[in-house]
Amino acid sequence: MPIRHAAIGRDMTVRQLVDSLSGCAFGAGRVAEAVDIYRDMVNDTECMKFFGLAGAMVPAGMRQIVSDLVKNGDIDILVTTGANLVHDIIESIGLHHYKGVDAADDIELKHCAINRIYDVFLPEGHFSKFEEKLQSIFGELPEHLSITELLSHIGSKLDDDNSILKSAYDAGVPVYCPAIQDSIIGLQAWLYKQAKPLNVDVFADMRGLIDLCFEAKRSGVLIVGGGVPKNFILQSMLVTPKSFDYAIQLTMDRPETGGLSGATLDEARSWGKVGENARSVTVYSDATITLPLIVAAAKSGEVG
Amino acid sequence: MPIRHAAIGRDMTVRQLVDSLSGCAFGAGRVAEAVDIYRDMVNDTECMKFFGLAGAMVPAGMRQIVSDLVKNGDIDILVTTGANLVHDIIESIGLHHYKGVDAADDIELKHCAINRIYDVFLPEGHFSKFEEKLQSIFGELPEHLSITELLSHIGSKLDDDNSILKSAYDAGVPVYCPAIQDSIIGLQAWLYKQAKPLNVDVFADMRGLIDLCFEAKRSGVLIVGGGVPKNFILQSMLVTPKSFDYAIQLTMDRPETGGLSGATLDEARSWGKVGENARSVTVYSDATITLPLIVAAAKSGEVG
Amino acid sequence: MPIRHAAIGRDMTVRQLVDSLSGCAFGAGRVAEAVDIYRDMVNDTECMKFFGLAGAMVPAGMRQIVSDLVKNGDIDILVTTGANLVHDIIESIGLHHYKGVDAADDIELKHCAINRIYDVFLPEGHFSKFEEKLQSIFGELPEHLSITELLSHIGSKLDDDNSILKSAYDAGVPVYCPAIQDSIIGLQAWLYKQAKPLNVDVFADMRGLIDLCFEAKRSGVLIVGGGVPKNFILQSMLVTPKSFDYAIQLTMDRPETGGLSGATLDEARSWGKVGENARSVTVYSDATITLPLIVAAAKSGEVG
Amino acid sequence: MPIRHAAIGRDMTVRQLVDSLSGCAFGAGRVAEAVDIYRDMVNDTECMKFFGLAGAMVPAGMRQIVSDLVKNGDIDILVTTGANLVHDIIESIGLHHYKGVDAADDIELKHCAINRIYDVFLPEGHFSKFEEKLQSIFGELPEHLSITELLSHIGSKLDDDNSILKSAYDAGVPVYCPAIQDSIIGLQAWLYKQAKPLNVDVFADMRGLIDLCFEAKRSGVLIVGGGVPKNFILQSMLVTPKSFDYAIQLTMDRPETGGLSGATLDEARSWGKVGENARSVTVYSDATITLPLIVAAAKSGEVG
Repeated sequence: MPIRHAAIGRDMTVRQLVDSLSGCAFGAGRVAEAVDIYRDMVNDTECMKFFGLAGAMVPAGMRQIVSDLVKNGDIDILVTTGANLVHDIIESIGLHHYKGVDAADDIELKHCAINRIYDVFLPEGHFSKFEEKLQSIFGELPEHLSITELLSHIGSKLDDDNSILKSAYDAGVPVYCPAIQDSIIGLQAWLYKQAKPLNVDVFADMRGLIDLCFEAKRSGVLIVGGGVPKNFILQSMLVTPKSFDYAIQLTMDRPETGGLSGATLDEARSWGKVGENARSVTVYSDATITLPLIVAAAKSGEVG
Repeated sequence: MPIRHAAIGRDMTVRQLVDSLSGCAFGAGRVAEAVDIYRDMVNDTECMKFFGLAGAMVPAGMRQIVSDLVKNGDIDILVTTGANLVHDIIESIGLHHYKGVDAADDIELKHCAINRIYDVFLPEGHFSKFEEKLQSIFGELPEHLSITELLSHIGSKLDDDNSILKSAYDAGVPVYCPAIQDSIIGLQAWLYKQAKPLNVDVFADMRGLIDLCFEAKRSGVLIVGGGVPKNFILQSMLVTPKSFDYAIQLTMDRPETGGLSGATLDEARSWGKVGENARSVTVYSDATITLPLIVAAAKSGEVG
Repeated sequence: MPIRHAAIGRDMTVRQLVDSLSGCAFGAGRVAEAVDIYRDMVNDTECMKFFGLAGAMVPAGMRQIVSDLVKNGDIDILVTTGANLVHDIIESIGLHHYKGVDAADDIELKHCAINRIYDVFLPEGHFSKFEEKLQSIFGELPEHLSITELLSHIGSKLDDDNSILKSAYDAGVPVYCPAIQDSIIGLQAWLYKQAKPLNVDVFADMRGLIDLCFEAKRSGVLIVGGGVPKNFILQSMLVTPKSFDYAIQLTMDRPETGGLSGATLDEARSWGKVGENARSVTVYSDATITLPLIVAAAKSGEVG
Repeated sequence: MPIRHAAIGRDMTVRQLVDSLSGCAFGAGRVAEAVDIYRDMVNDTECMKFFGLAGAMVPAGMRQIVSDLVKNGDIDILVTTGANLVHDIIESIGLHHYKGVDAADDIELKHCAINRIYDVFLPEGHFSKFEEKLQSIFGELPEHLSITELLSHIGSKLDDDNSILKSAYDAGVPVYCPAIQDSIIGLQAWLYKQAKPLNVDVFADMRGLIDLCFEAKRSGVLIVGGGVPKNFILQSMLVTPKSFDYAIQLTMDRPETGGLSGATLDEARSWGKVGENARSVTVYSDATITLPLIVAAAKSGEVG
């Protein structure tokens, strides 16, 4: 197929822009392909839809996109990092992240009690309020539960419709967070356990996940970043006779380091995680740009 | 300023999408900032507008965007690589690049006489037609000329309104290509010189460029990729008392290798290439995605 | 200090090479700085030494370097990923990883029952033997334990001196693996729990870790890759009045994506994870090259 | 072949280290492979040896390694960027580059007249002395010459045995610099031409290069970085019936952007630039680390 060069018109819709990129190669062509796969995946009513969320996506401003996807039924199972949930909870109690600069003097920031996440500033004081909130939520915890149950419990206590955890609770979407102790939630759990018993079994929620995988007719995944969410989602199919039918990854990671985050989705085919005939694409570009772009294009009607 | 989370609506325009990203951080925030700077730069009638084009942007499908920018008067001076011009000429004689795959067997491609540029395929036979065309154009060349004059001459002989070289010729936009011999144009010149005299002085067109820099009230640059175009543009201000007032770079290159392609635009301030008070931003993301996105957003009316 | 250009002699030792790089800039200078910091950290008898191991370092051939560091007393606390431990166990039962190629046909590999990790091939059959071994080890498990206790138990049952888990068990080095369920160990635990009770509390081992952090006079960390190990180690200081005194990161990740893996160690100063006066350096280069290089240079006597 | 895990001993030589990496995968394995290919290439007396030098390698401290390779007869043809030559000339007149920091305040540096190249500082005053030197050298220039002749002329006037240009002149090694005007040498030529005639034909030195390519029995290339040197070297074989027999690239660039700098050497096989049976490897890592490492290992005797 000949390369069809993109052309930009005045007041284009996102859908028109992506259509214009569909004849291009490199990242442009991949974005168009990702939109195509994502539309089909979301519209496939028999497809169980996973969403993997790694990277500091909530601090960067991607929180509402994710909670809206949950509300719209576009995510059946969410796998994320502890950090994203910490920042989701912080916002849900009315506290903000702030636009800063990446070329900051970090020692000066330390003196000003400001924590930096690339070009996002976070007042250290937020964590006292976070502690207060989380300890109050923890106060009502049953002693034994799984990570998804713990997160569902937290979600049920949040009062913010834009919260990812709250939306997931409302929609009955399970939230998996394999390395939950690797976050301020973990530190708060350590604190809580000094006074009260709490037993969160690492492996307890895997059964439910794998049962869902066995039941699914088809499955698809949108992976933002890589990390634990990517691997945890992909490996969940390993014990079933199935594999993912749709797979999209948005990442800046690269294959050559050999790590899983940058591994190609083709590599996952050798493992049987992604199916031989699955449609898959990796867009190597900043996910804070490509996630909104792809979702916006997929959420648009056909171009006449 | 608190991070304002992006929200995606149905049938959004590109402008609405970028507005929605403007409260975000990381790449999302930078795209919105780039659009803001680019609009101001393009609308600044006293600003001399440079455009640096590196990377295989023409094979990837970015050709018409560039030629349209030239036609619209959004580029006053174009600096690019020989390769982009070779591929521009190939398309202008009605030959195509083809969408292929990056995971190809290159030895098999060689046997099929197909040249690969990442996921673009190019039939080797195109280069025979390219040779025919270029030698015919060269046949009418004056013996002494500068690189910009050579490229202007080629542009004048092309018959394709989407051609970058043709559009630049029509619009009187000079095209600089410092490493022109580093391309198939260079190989064709070697061939031509076996029979006829040709003398293209390396330094001849610098005077015109620097004169323009001296005359410019203000100047701005949109850099796609890095490479020779980036440095050649930025250094052109070094001999003047001026510096760039607007600077945008779209690249995947990174600062830590120390090379100029990935160098921050702040580094250019230490040299006086970019002004102390200049507005600048680098978007670290695939330029085949961000260039169309930024141009489309800048080409849109204000959101009501 | 003027740049002192590197000079290469015949039959140089690694130490001489690194000394020759010490007057250079970019990555070369950073390697020399990393060696300098690492020597001081290892020789500081009052320093608690963390080691963070992410990325597919065991499949790549870095296993013995890590187990030797454990044996030599150069690691007090190891934090790693489930995948590295899975591959450590696989090798400890006499099974191998194989040198393959990254440009492989993954569907063909699937048909041959070969799993690919970049340019490493792993026969799928290994996982049956892994299952047999792990289920036999699990058979003797107490019902309640922490992740470190689980890993210590596994280490005690391995019979291979080059094993990381075995060496850590022998040396009394605790191994933390926050996302252990995100690995084939997790899938095996799911299987085991279908028949027998097993309760591994996510948060149980944080107390021991934080107690160690409170007790440490000084602390240092060598981070290979980023991921969960990086964050888990750095956050462990957050609840103490202390911070890391030495910090080295070997990674290809980049800051501009905003994720923690690529975040600069300076960013960690704003949080108080790394101290204001701590010595720190990030080497942006492939860790399978820089880890051996830095360890080899640090393990050498002074150049006379 | 099973992965053989690297093991680090005390006081290892570089050669022993690289031998230890030879059983590893990822970057470690590639370094060992690069050493193997490089040794064979250098020892192949019928092989014409190209060296491509891009990136700010001279400011970083790689100058003497290159000039020593020239002196040792390990480079037959050098292709580089104008910037590397500018910095080579600066050092050859006794001026230094300085080790700085990358996280500098560039506006403050500007006020202090210090130019920054990542973590290298360069006093702006050096350029006045550079101008003086170069104009004095230019004063004796013939009116008509090629770029290689111009560079040979400059080399003949330098009085520093560690100079790349001087060493190349002494050894009769031609230096190609396709984008020479894209450097301060270009700006000095512009200045010179205001008063005196100078005509440097862009294409004049291609004939000599291509003649050498036709004559060569075999050919090999070590490419540091990518950029113009990479493409210029590889394309030189295009008009011959030959192709490169050995090819090594040391780069941080990545294939996914589609640009030539990050393109795989396999892609070059589809063009016939690298031969079907050629031995080639790309090491994706910081070249200021891998170039010294590989040269040091290749310059060592066999391990007994």
